[in-house]
Amino acid sequence: MIVELISVGTEILLGNIVNTNAAYLSEKCAQLGLSLYYQTVVGDNPDRLEETLKLALERSDIVILGGGLGPTKDDLTKEAAARVLGKKLVEDPRSREMIQKFFDTRGIKEITDNNWKQALVPEGAIVVDNDNGTAPGLILEEGEKTLILLPGPPGEMKPMFEKDIFPYLNQKQPEIIVSEMIKICGMGESRVETMIADLIEKQTNPTIATYAKIGEVHLRLTAKAADEAAARKLMKPVIRELKVRFGGSIYTTNEKMTLEESVVQLLKEQDLTLTTVESCTGGLFTGRLVNVQGASEVLKQGFITYSNKAKRKLIGVKKLTLKEFGAVSDKTAKEMAKGAILTTGSDVAVSITGIAGPDGGTKEKPVGLVYIAVSVKGNMRVEEYHFTGNRMKIRESAVVAALTLLRTSILETIKF
Amino acid sequence: MIVELISVGTEILLGNIVNTNAAYLSEKCAQLGLSLYYQTVVGDNPDRLEETLKLALERSDIVILGGGLGPTKDDLTKEAAARVLGKKLVEDPRSREMIQKFFDTRGIKEITDNNWKQALVPEGAIVVDNDNGTAPGLILEEGEKTLILLPGPPGEMKPMFEKDIFPYLNQKQPEIIVSEMIKICGMGESRVETMIADLIEKQTNPTIATYAKIGEVHLRLTAKAADEAAARKLMKPVIRELKVRFGGSIYTTNEKMTLEESVVQLLKEQDLTLTTVESCTGGLFTGRLVNVQGASEVLKQGFITYSNKAKRKLIGVKKLTLKEFGAVSDKTAKEMAKGAILTTGSDVAVSITGIAGPDGGTKEKPVGLVYIAVSVKGNMRVEEYHFTGNRMKIRESAVVAALTLLRTSILETIKF
Repeated sequence: MIVELISVGTEILLGNIVNTNAAYLSEKCAQLGLSLYYQTVVGDNPDRLEETLKLALERSDIVILGGGLGPTKDDLTKEAAARVLGKKLVEDPRSREMIQKFFDTRGIKEITDNNWKQALVPEGAIVVDNDNGTAPGLILEEGEKTLILLPGPPGEMKPMFEKDIFPYLNQKQPEIIVSEMIKICGMGESRVETMIADLIEKQTNPTIATYAKIGEVHLRLTAKAADEAAARKLMKPVIRELKVRFGGSIYTTNEKMTLEESVVQLLKEQDLTLTTVESCTGGLFTGRLVNVQGASEVLKQGFITYSNKAKRKLIGVKKLTLKEFGAVSDKTAKEMAKGAILTTGSDVAVSITGIAGPDGGTKEKPVGLVYIAVSVKGNMRVEEYHFTGNRMKIRESAVVAALTLLRTSILETIKF
Repeated sequence: MIVELISVGTEILLGNIVNTNAAYLSEKCAQLGLSLYYQTVVGDNPDRLEETLKLALERSDIVILGGGLGPTKDDLTKEAAARVLGKKLVEDPRSREMIQKFFDTRGIKEITDNNWKQALVPEGAIVVDNDNGTAPGLILEEGEKTLILLPGPPGEMKPMFEKDIFPYLNQKQPEIIVSEMIKICGMGESRVETMIADLIEKQTNPTIATYAKIGEVHLRLTAKAADEAAARKLMKPVIRELKVRFGGSIYTTNEKMTLEESVVQLLKEQDLTLTTVESCTGGLFTGRLVNVQGASEVLKQGFITYSNKAKRKLIGVKKLTLKEFGAVSDKTAKEMAKGAILTTGSDVAVSITGIAGPDGGTKEKPVGLVYIAVSVKGNMRVEEYHFTGNRMKIRESAVVAALTLLRTSILETIKF
């Protein structure tokens, strides 16, 4: 089936916001096995919106419209859809109730009139509850064609899509689509692709798609079958094969888990406390770990030792080490991690020191050179990295590399 | 004049990448005073690309195509444009030379044949140099219509647009467009809009557009005139008026300067050294400061005191203070900043402590409550904030609020 996306909003055409909804919906459509040929963005203009909608209905089976369902005069999507399909707008009692409830639970007594506009739906529409806002989603079936209207705010659209639209689209297809995510750290995209080139070529069900992130590669397996059990059965041998090929580099097969979550979970499971010492990353590494809810159970403190003096005074790096080998060296990285353990008594320490640029590089120590040391229960490991890109990219790459090295070091220590 | 954007690339339709180029180009078109009515994304498919291009040329004066200019078989944009305009592809000797040079400077001796495909251009095209890659940009003028072909990678597209395409589009218009950016911190979007509602309504030349960022609002003034001097003259009284209304909340009028850059610059100018102490932000504040090249001149160290014990041991927050007022309190924030000054001897300290959620909130201290203290040369200031949103949003808001409070505190100290 062919699907098409239309995003409605003048703020996108003015460049005020980036259209991340389109990327999200595109990935979901790919996951559902739907062919997406066009994405269009059109402003809050009734004529152009209608034109765009008509064209989309001519060339695609399913049209997903995002945005323009709110209470203001600029919100025109529902009206345009009703006109194109020749339907009247009628009030949906349940939506009216939901809007009332939304304001009640927030203690808002005066509901302005324009809000009730959101309870109007084209006749015959399937109304989809919005658990995070007032504008419901709508599904309009018209012969062979399907029109899906979603609210614009990502915080409303995404939960609605996951809960109701994804299953609806899945069930519309002759076969069920099931997908699994395998997340790999510590390997570049081209290496991962080379390692599975044979599988990508010969595998048609499930298919394997690669998604490159900074320092990570995600593999999405998608299988089609008559029911979910059959689809999972098709995936099983392929997942097993991927686990053999990538082993410990797979940090999760849980779609929602991030690398930092998997690391915090590992520290919790092993009952390990962590101290961080950052130079070039200047707090980014710890900041990312703290984004995990409950990180406080394992992370007690961190040091940002940006200057040589701070490296000496706060965590006891030796003056001689700094003089002889420099702040960016494996020796300094090791002493930073060792000093952190001695100062705080934590079980694990991670240290990062490097040259993020654009200045400060030399022939011997170029921009992008980073040393990361990890000490787990007395076992010290230090690695040298050469990252490319601008200052921000180098620092982000260092953060992901540190997460990966921390993870590997803990796993190695457990093994022995 | 009406402009339209077409992004070419199956990777966008699969959701593998977010279309940030479209947001960038849309903002530039708005800045140029061009009306953008449609953005379309189409895959690497010759028929659908041609259809999309034909439709765009029917309804718009200028069509900007991004992507699909590279050396692979999937790169079809130039071929599609040539076919739609009925032009032959011919080799451009200068482009061939540039490609040769690109590889020479990188020490690459063997240039594969497909690279020379990038030197082929539709006859009559204006060729635009690519200083950061091998695929040149192209401008095709056909009667009243203009077609602009740009490379896909943002690192190639953006510099090319700034250097050659922006001036080209500007000069195509009857009047010159000049714009200025005014960046405001410490005020919400609705407050800023209220404060200039009269100006937005009555101002037609220059126009004022607002762009909301986390903790910041950017105002773009755009003036049209016969030449640049006349445009700047039109803007002058409006900028003066905005400076009167927003005063010290304007942190820069330099389009490229970030809030953290303005703060680091201020610290440098005043010859002040800084220490940070972060709890709920866990390193994000310092990490953002360190993104400024040369931050090491002012920022020597930071502490991430996530646990109560770390607050006591590392920077000497009193046990009694933590017990009586709690870790999230103005008293603790003050002691964190004071302790940082005493421990390190720096001139300035910033401390952040709060509840980022989703757990840990109470009726008295709800999720989103954050205290930030700043000490500048012995002058202490502490502020209470109530942020909304998820864990990440609350932490990012705290980072921007801390940058803003740091800036204000330094400016106040200078004044006296």
